[in-house]
Amino acid sequence: MLEYKDFEEKTIQRKEIFKGKIIEVVLDDVALPMGGEAKRELVFHHGGVGIIPITKENKIIMVKQFRKPLEKVVLEIPAGKIDPGEGQHPEKTARRELEEETGYKAEKLDYVAEMYLSPGFSNEKLYIYLGQQLEKVENPRPQDDDEVLELYELTLAEAHQAITDGLICDAKTIYAVQYWELLQIKQGED
Amino acid sequence: MLEYKDFEEKTIQRKEIFKGKIIEVVLDDVALPMGGEAKRELVFHHGGVGIIPITKENKIIMVKQFRKPLEKVVLEIPAGKIDPGEGQHPEKTARRELEEETGYKAEKLDYVAEMYLSPGFSNEKLYIYLGQQLEKVENPRPQDDDEVLELYELTLAEAHQAITDGLICDAKTIYAVQYWELLQIKQGED
Repeated sequence: MLEYKDFEEKTIQRKEIFKGKIIEVVLDDVALPMGGEAKRELVFHHGGVGIIPITKENKIIMVKQFRKPLEKVVLEIPAGKIDPGEGQHPEKTARRELEEETGYKAEKLDYVAEMYLSPGFSNEKLYIYLGQQLEKVENPRPQDDDEVLELYELTLAEAHQAITDGLICDAKTIYAVQYWELLQIKQGED
Repeated sequence: MLEYKDFEEKTIQRKEIFKGKIIEVVLDDVALPMGGEAKRELVFHHGGVGIIPITKENKIIMVKQFRKPLEKVVLEIPAGKIDPGEGQHPEKTARRELEEETGYKAEKLDYVAEMYLSPGFSNEKLYIYLGQQLEKVENPRPQDDDEVLELYELTLAEAHQAITDGLICDAKTIYAVQYWELLQIKQGED
């Protein structure tokens, strides 16, 4: 069995490429554990949260929005970036984003998973929560002013169809639909 | 119901930031559909494949490797980048990567899903396949020469424990374990 030192790539030199509002890009020269060197292109990101919001009618709430990297309108579970200072409390971000994007509050919010989305080049980490016992908020927090969002409530069958149609097409949302399917099977076994 | 034009963000100007071997970074000025402008930081990537390799003993094969963006050794399903020219045939990439990383060939390789990993800033798309009826390859293709890999075969319970321990910590692999769990439940119902 190999040890940590047999895997580790030590940074020899780091070159700053870009520091934006969302991402930071650097280029590392690394020393390979078996000798020799390589370049590593790295994108740093503060991470985010995604919420799987299940209504009392057993539907999942999705947000329709435009995604510039895809040049496409897609359906996703509500999600958002973790603000500086919120990093230790991602469930706070989850409550805020759920209210901002859907106008709902979750009486029950449970941790589901945390995952690096693209570990080959990025440290972006997503925390996922399950939101249940949803209640409409009287005066919800306003949405971000550079986002156009439209809300949908889907049954599990409709969510599967949306995956087949390519309208649901991102990892966290496809994971969320699968999680919800498994949850329903497990609850049915109780 | 809103139409495409109500969501679309048109590029006014694109600034090239970085063109590496793995990623390309650009900064777009976009016209927002409701008026006004915004900046979009975008990372372009050629995409990749992930394989869920299930052995005849009903174990999942995972690859232990160092991930520079995380500064961490992790367990992942075998995966790799799509080479230029392979874009239309991701299952070819899947067969190649499975053999290179594990020394196994899948007699049965089935499409599972395709997903954008980080649609907020990147167009990176991952195709996932289920590999079954695995056979050892006599003279497998060599691994990439800048990678140190170690193979593990896990039961479902061991895979769940590795998620709890944070050793399995990326979206495709967590999705894969959940997919495998759901598959076993569905096969048990047959």
